[in-house]
Amino acid sequence: MQDYSLLYKKELLENIIPFWSNHSIDKEHGGFFTCLDRAGQVYDTDKFMWLQGRQIWTYSMLYNNVERNPAFLDVARHGADFILKNGRDTDGNFYFSLNREGKPLVQPYNIFSDCFAAMGLGALYKADGKDEYGQVAKDTFENILRRRDNPKGKYSKGFPGTRDLKNFALPMILCNLSLELEHLLDKQLVDNLIEEVLHEVLDVFYDDATGMIVENVYLDGSFSDSHEGRLLNPGHVIEAMWFIMDLGVRRNDRSLIEKAVTIALRTLKFGWDEKHGGILYFKDIKGHPVQQLEWDQKLWWVHVEALVCMAKAYQLTGNEDCKEWFDILHNYTWSHYRDDQYGEWFGYLNRQGEVLLNLKGGKWKGCFHIPRALYQLYKTLEVQKALTADPLS
Amino acid sequence: MQDYSLLYKKELLENIIPFWSNHSIDKEHGGFFTCLDRAGQVYDTDKFMWLQGRQIWTYSMLYNNVERNPAFLDVARHGADFILKNGRDTDGNFYFSLNREGKPLVQPYNIFSDCFAAMGLGALYKADGKDEYGQVAKDTFENILRRRDNPKGKYSKGFPGTRDLKNFALPMILCNLSLELEHLLDKQLVDNLIEEVLHEVLDVFYDDATGMIVENVYLDGSFSDSHEGRLLNPGHVIEAMWFIMDLGVRRNDRSLIEKAVTIALRTLKFGWDEKHGGILYFKDIKGHPVQQLEWDQKLWWVHVEALVCMAKAYQLTGNEDCKEWFDILHNYTWSHYRDDQYGEWFGYLNRQGEVLLNLKGGKWKGCFHIPRALYQLYKTLEVQKALTADPLS
Repeated sequence: MQDYSLLYKKELLENIIPFWSNHSIDKEHGGFFTCLDRAGQVYDTDKFMWLQGRQIWTYSMLYNNVERNPAFLDVARHGADFILKNGRDTDGNFYFSLNREGKPLVQPYNIFSDCFAAMGLGALYKADGKDEYGQVAKDTFENILRRRDNPKGKYSKGFPGTRDLKNFALPMILCNLSLELEHLLDKQLVDNLIEEVLHEVLDVFYDDATGMIVENVYLDGSFSDSHEGRLLNPGHVIEAMWFIMDLGVRRNDRSLIEKAVTIALRTLKFGWDEKHGGILYFKDIKGHPVQQLEWDQKLWWVHVEALVCMAKAYQLTGNEDCKEWFDILHNYTWSHYRDDQYGEWFGYLNRQGEVLLNLKGGKWKGCFHIPRALYQLYKTLEVQKALTADPLS
Repeated sequence: MQDYSLLYKKELLENIIPFWSNHSIDKEHGGFFTCLDRAGQVYDTDKFMWLQGRQIWTYSMLYNNVERNPAFLDVARHGADFILKNGRDTDGNFYFSLNREGKPLVQPYNIFSDCFAAMGLGALYKADGKDEYGQVAKDTFENILRRRDNPKGKYSKGFPGTRDLKNFALPMILCNLSLELEHLLDKQLVDNLIEEVLHEVLDVFYDDATGMIVENVYLDGSFSDSHEGRLLNPGHVIEAMWFIMDLGVRRNDRSLIEKAVTIALRTLKFGWDEKHGGILYFKDIKGHPVQQLEWDQKLWWVHVEALVCMAKAYQLTGNEDCKEWFDILHNYTWSHYRDDQYGEWFGYLNRQGEVLLNLKGGKWKGCFHIPRALYQLYKTLEVQKALTADPLS
């Protein structure tokens, strides 16, 4: 019998984190390199705000929740100092990317840059207590709330009035972010956001016809029979479902947990590739061709988020389907993503499960999904271990 | 010995064109459906300006160059009437997409919408002579020239001054477009654009270190060691090279032709997938991982453009390498893209050469690359046939 909890904890602290600590710190200009090849060598020096903020969060979270190791705090501060110095325009919006030296490359068109910056700074404030971290996290959160109804602002390419859609990602992230920043925010605001996101996810974006959750709906919540409206991103839904389960625990709401587990299992089944294994990246809910050419690829974050989801689902409900899926996902993930030779995990596989991009980090893959999932998994499986003699095995 | 010229002509007139004539005409709201599934059924009704303009061009070109068939002219007029009525904002910029009824969906952020609209209307004016077609083609061309230094305008997400790059696509298309609209434009303007594009493509975007052509360079023509600057799109370069060969013929410039053939062969070799056959979609010129997840896919337009390029190259130079490549490409293309069962050709294959998207048309694939290439091939091989007893076989 394998001790899964220990396995995931060791992977986090002995493989993943050392890789980023060793290879991603830009000692000359500050911030983090994220374009790292298989061996961890830097192949491009651009700095993407999503990944700067997320790595600050990861190291702060490790310090807050795993071990008061001053080295973790140093890395988080190193990233925070760089984004505080270089990351914002004069209105306080975070750029999408900077060059190595910190000069802006891409304008603040993407509100998730702000979300992850606030998330990182908020977690660091918890660890460090320096006023500036907390203040900028709070100001950024308020700026996000101001921009939320028109998140792309002047960079939006949609023509207003013809097909006004809203997207599933922002309410999800706002709810997550409000919990991350709970120590900085008004309680009522957090509670309202939770109420709102539960309604949005489980009623508005929920598609009655299929029992799944689509990425985009009309402003009134109705289904849009268009490429955007038919789009389903299984990994995104499954990730959201473990987040809803956490809210269920917080509210002691079993029916909420059951609902999230049901949707997660349904989505996993729909997204699973019967031919080659693994979860497909995108599907059209009506089975039409999608616009995303990468639809059949197997992405690292999808699989580690699904592992977290099934571990939590089994722990909370004892549903044996969740245990079966956990085992399937565990086997697929460890045999396909992990790089025994150079450490860390690959990010992008083709449909057949072969490595598609020979990298450990890039524009979108950084120090976030894997460490967060490994942390969630070892904590969840630790509880599981305490509850049963035979944890998930 | 197979008569390739006849084969390509038959494929154009008996397979491809009937497919679009039968399935793409929206008789109710005008314009063309392009989201057609394997059998030609419409699976989405959005209308993308690139493909509206390109289909107008294709049917006008057939009428002008292949056969004075009034049915061709009717289809072209049907598309033109739709885009003239619905396609432009009040400043004369073409939207990127419209819904089925013709209401704007996506703003005019993409100058190639204007390019293909002008190209279609210009060709139709040659066929039909109605003033409005010529006038809007000419006005749109002038509008493109006005916007060319900042083609994305307010939708540009680049931060000015940090890494100002220019892209290979616009000079190429402008040159092509000026030739397409030659009957409407001042001769000096066309000659100047040709001079300029020859300089841009063969000097500015040409990378001395590798002897190939990159997609983006700094404004001063120097190499940018960034994801954008290292990006090579083999199909795009190879397409540009047959276009340069046409300019070589026009100017009776053998050294220009030889140069284009050399670059085309080098790029084909660099882009060819030794493992599974076919031409890869994107590569990093230094061998680093690219940002495009679809980098290893095999796209229809890349392969038919390469066929045109090698046919012209062999016809013009007699270089046996070109004949060998033509045969390799001919075999790959006909065995992988053509759909014997439902007609037309597939567009998107995975690296292994299997169908990735079960469609005949979508957001980017319409009635353009295949018919243009088949036309170019049958014309080129007809000349070849007249020159030798043993054409390319």
